[in-house]
Amino acid sequence: MSILETIRSPKDIKNLPAQRLNELAAEIRALLVDVTAKNGGHLASNLGVVELTIALHRVFDSPTDRIIFDVSHQTYVHKLLTGRNGDVFLKIRMDGGCSGFSSPDESEHDAFVAGHAGTALSAALGLAYARDKIGDGTSNIIAVLGDASLSCGLTMEALNNMSATTKRLIIIVNDNKFSIGRSVGAIPLYLNKILRSKIYGATIGVLKKMLGSGKFGTSILRNARRLKRALKSLILPTSYFEYYGLRYFGPVDGHSIAQMEEIFEFCRHSKVPVLVHVKTVKGKGCAAAADFPEKFHGVEPAVALENCEKNADCEKNTASAKDTDYGEILGLQLAKLAECDVRIVGVVSAMARGTGLVHMRNKFPDRCLDVGIAEEHAVTFSAALAKGGMRPICAMYSTFLQRAFDQILHDVCLQNLPVIFCIDRAGISAHDGATHHGIFDISYLRPIPNAVILQPNGAQEFVDALHSALLWNCPTFIRYPKSCGRVVDASALKFSKFLGIGRADELVRGKEVCLIALGPMIDLARAVAAQLKSAGVNAGILNGRFAKPLDESALGKVFEDYEMVATIEDNVLSGGFGSAVLEFYLAAERNSSGVRKNRGTRKILRFGWPDKFIGHGSSIGSIMGKNGLSPSEIAGKIIGALSATEPHSRKISTANAGVGHFL
Amino acid sequence: MSILETIRSPKDIKNLPAQRLNELAAEIRALLVDVTAKNGGHLASNLGVVELTIALHRVFDSPTDRIIFDVSHQTYVHKLLTGRNGDVFLKIRMDGGCSGFSSPDESEHDAFVAGHAGTALSAALGLAYARDKIGDGTSNIIAVLGDASLSCGLTMEALNNMSATTKRLIIIVNDNKFSIGRSVGAIPLYLNKILRSKIYGATIGVLKKMLGSGKFGTSILRNARRLKRALKSLILPTSYFEYYGLRYFGPVDGHSIAQMEEIFEFCRHSKVPVLVHVKTVKGKGCAAAADFPEKFHGVEPAVALENCEKNADCEKNTASAKDTDYGEILGLQLAKLAECDVRIVGVVSAMARGTGLVHMRNKFPDRCLDVGIAEEHAVTFSAALAKGGMRPICAMYSTFLQRAFDQILHDVCLQNLPVIFCIDRAGISAHDGATHHGIFDISYLRPIPNAVILQPNGAQEFVDALHSALLWNCPTFIRYPKSCGRVVDASALKFSKFLGIGRADELVRGKEVCLIALGPMIDLARAVAAQLKSAGVNAGILNGRFAKPLDESALGKVFEDYEMVATIEDNVLSGGFGSAVLEFYLAAERNSSGVRKNRGTRKILRFGWPDKFIGHGSSIGSIMGKNGLSPSEIAGKIIGALSATEPHSRKISTANAGVGHFL
Repeated sequence: MSILETIRSPKDIKNLPAQRLNELAAEIRALLVDVTAKNGGHLASNLGVVELTIALHRVFDSPTDRIIFDVSHQTYVHKLLTGRNGDVFLKIRMDGGCSGFSSPDESEHDAFVAGHAGTALSAALGLAYARDKIGDGTSNIIAVLGDASLSCGLTMEALNNMSATTKRLIIIVNDNKFSIGRSVGAIPLYLNKILRSKIYGATIGVLKKMLGSGKFGTSILRNARRLKRALKSLILPTSYFEYYGLRYFGPVDGHSIAQMEEIFEFCRHSKVPVLVHVKTVKGKGCAAAADFPEKFHGVEPAVALENCEKNADCEKNTASAKDTDYGEILGLQLAKLAECDVRIVGVVSAMARGTGLVHMRNKFPDRCLDVGIAEEHAVTFSAALAKGGMRPICAMYSTFLQRAFDQILHDVCLQNLPVIFCIDRAGISAHDGATHHGIFDISYLRPIPNAVILQPNGAQEFVDALHSALLWNCPTFIRYPKSCGRVVDASALKFSKFLGIGRADELVRGKEVCLIALGPMIDLARAVAAQLKSAGVNAGILNGRFAKPLDESALGKVFEDYEMVATIEDNVLSGGFGSAVLEFYLAAERNSSGVRKNRGTRKILRFGWPDKFIGHGSSIGSIMGKNGLSPSEIAGKIIGALSATEPHSRKISTANAGVGHFL
Repeated sequence: MSILETIRSPKDIKNLPAQRLNELAAEIRALLVDVTAKNGGHLASNLGVVELTIALHRVFDSPTDRIIFDVSHQTYVHKLLTGRNGDVFLKIRMDGGCSGFSSPDESEHDAFVAGHAGTALSAALGLAYARDKIGDGTSNIIAVLGDASLSCGLTMEALNNMSATTKRLIIIVNDNKFSIGRSVGAIPLYLNKILRSKIYGATIGVLKKMLGSGKFGTSILRNARRLKRALKSLILPTSYFEYYGLRYFGPVDGHSIAQMEEIFEFCRHSKVPVLVHVKTVKGKGCAAAADFPEKFHGVEPAVALENCEKNADCEKNTASAKDTDYGEILGLQLAKLAECDVRIVGVVSAMARGTGLVHMRNKFPDRCLDVGIAEEHAVTFSAALAKGGMRPICAMYSTFLQRAFDQILHDVCLQNLPVIFCIDRAGISAHDGATHHGIFDISYLRPIPNAVILQPNGAQEFVDALHSALLWNCPTFIRYPKSCGRVVDASALKFSKFLGIGRADELVRGKEVCLIALGPMIDLARAVAAQLKSAGVNAGILNGRFAKPLDESALGKVFEDYEMVATIEDNVLSGGFGSAVLEFYLAAERNSSGVRKNRGTRKILRFGWPDKFIGHGSSIGSIMGKNGLSPSEIAGKIIGALSATEPHSRKISTANAGVGHFL
């Protein structure tokens, strides 16, 4: 029996002899490499926090003590140590497996949902305040932040409120890449000692050591410039956090369980908020990973690690992994466009790789502006770039664009500025689950005046949309999923056809029913049409293309030609594309006299995501199937509705349930 | 002729002899007091920046140099100095007058729209980058921030990106209340001198002076604690900003034009980003205001000033100013509730007064948590408070809640946490214009699963909704305008009736048409019904109450009983309440055979705000009138539609234009 198998709860970790902890860490690493090779996921960040997580559970008492992981893609180790080792972990991110993020539904040890960066400190403050006011007042609240989250506005807002909110909070900054303060080095090590030994009233000797000089007094008097620099190095890393009322400890070796245990034990009893700066190596134990090269399906471990590092949702294991990503097409196109037009600039928030803009960055390093995890700034900054005459392309995942809703409305659209938003990962996201699905964007963008929203049908149309958008000169939102579902020679794609704003495209002329779909849902519509055909129903297909503005002329014709219309979208039904079609349908409805013409649409069905949060699954297909979005289910509902148009056979139902929203 | 009248453009200010500037300032103050007494608006903050704005225009060359005011309610002086003195200013915030905020449509001197705090630095960075890359490379970009904006996440995100974006940027922090660094005092004055004389390589003497001691070297060696404190005072105010790559100057007397001119002149040529810390007195010249007490309509100038200080939109001058505000009712109710339930806590983002929570704060100072201008944190913090077992009431203006869209979705609703959002200023906002209308919330909240959205009909129902929401135990969004439109004894209101989730209320039984309205639109519906009655049409009125979930049973009955339905909402039509009714109507439509029953709804009209940004106006009524939302226009459209139900008289139209969306 392995050591890991003996860990059924955090209690078991506490009882483990210290000398066996490294063995446990090695077992966990091997398992992480194994499972992520199969299921995908965040390998590198989890490899980096093995010892940190062990130390946390050795010292603190979850769930009485609440550990809140920021973003929480680094909670695999935590999951393994809190009763989720076994089948549920082997299936992580898959049907029947645990989530790749914190999930309070899954375990009482998961304190808070977290899929978007920068929420941990705010959440910790709320829990701390509740503890102080109505809770036990003694348990610990521990926020585990990544260093990158420190650039996120939400974290900064929380930091600013910390000392006013609670006197007891532990912040752990898992610093695995960026330096928090560039001056962090030898001196902060001394500072750490100083603080721990409460040297707020300590001796000269320590201060002398701090600057590594016995002639402290005279040397500063000799050179003011050197003093300034020295004092800055001395004061900066502490004073930055102390400004917010935090006591700073660090840096601590994040791979020394003993060192961390010691400092965490000290923090447990602190009567002031503390910040522990833990240095870890992302992908620590990469050597171990290299021992299992076959588990990476022929992918170099280093490459796999890098992918996992860079992508918020690492879906490298899906069957379609070899299909071309829209991001790749975007990056290559931008690199080309940037060559011809000095105004073009890419803006990303810590997602240059995920969005494909890395291709542009490789060619024009200074024209791919990565602002860090700062979506709000990315959008207002883009608005001002446009205002200044540039043509910013702001590439962001749909789920993260939510964070900049007000900036889109107030800074971009209100001024009608030509920012092009390339919304990657629009639609359902398979393995990452509820926190990462991009299924709300049509609904929240559609109410915003001046917004042009479209979803291209395939790689070529995506390229055409991108180039056309540069000519439209208005706020434009191009949404698309990760993969274009085919293998495409991305570098060969060229602008081939100008797309007019709000122009749909008739793909298949049919008879009884017209399927109006957007983007990849057009493929689904084709599958539905095939099933309908075998049932003797002749379905037309309209590539709706634009969610706003609608093609009123094309839709008007559809309403005239077909007795039934079905919309299919990769977005929630509430306020989505189908809802827009509905609004227009009733606006355009020409025969409202109670006696309809023989010709013309008499029924609309809408297919999309229901009004509930949707979890993760093994594939997009499996999630769609579970939510009534399979070709057969859609075709079945259409056939049912068509046959129900005979008055006597149509049942009255006011049920408004779920997907496949039956009108 | 007054001096102000001679200022037609910023050029004229430059030509003015320095000794006449104070006279100009006095004239401006008198005008500000005069105009805001009539029109309402932000008096105190504008009185505080008179000299600052004059100095800015003396030194910089707008519009070549771009001055970006954060929030921009302090741009009245700027407007007066950039060609908008005269009738357009006298009508500020009224029909035909200029906006109370920056408006690029109004003048080339207004660099960027800004009604929400914290956008200026992001915007300035975008403009600076554009200037460096495709612009003249030499003009100045000046961001004028309030100190409170420094707590806003967006500002922090921008600050974090500053040094990577540009080498030339001027940030002016107008510090009129909070201290930026608590240690700011005598020493920073020295620091300022040091920095300006480039003492990065300066002499011992200055350093000695800085600590006011000739025995610098020995004294620090004698007492480490004192050293630490001294160094902190010395380094903190600069190092905080220097951490971000900024050179700090200040504090400067914001009422000394000469001092500011000198330092701005220096900044103009700086090759690194600089921050000038300007100390101003909000309401400066209050004495002048006191000279015109009658202009304050009997209100003590001090009170008027305080109102203007505290409220983002100061609508004290409207006719309904004496009607009771929902905020007052909320504050008083919360104060009562908090007495009985220790879990209840109020959360606001710098709006304790505007939202009425000041009443609660007066009684329970530690249970009204004001997080500063940090809407995102307010919401995630509230989510965690709820998670920790508390019952947070998060009160925010509708337009500012937009900033926390992702936090609502990801932190509150995904975890189905019982946070009660009290959404003040929902609907159109009269004087503040496009940046402040709260007309999007139904549309952007409705797609979010688990959200319960309602708008109470009047003060009593508001109290019932608030108390009921505490029993519902789910994410709840109660929206309401500023005023409840009547004089109510707020302290006498008591919880009288439990409201079931998603239950509508039939107010008037009618015959031909049913008007379904929310909140204050019910009053409008009554006025419409009166007009319809005189035309022989018997209209029913349903208080829809909930935008989500809908009362399917009540609506089902309406669709059965009335041949026509008209929805009226104070929200955009796109994806709003009417859209929800539409979605349900077609879902519930029972007769889709092409031959409708004689009974049952055959037509739905939706009334709400059109798909365009709407400016400010003299009153809510005047804006509604201009957008087709007057009783007579709505009644006219309903009558037209009713008479058009005769097949021969109904014209085919696919036009989908604007308000009064005609189905």
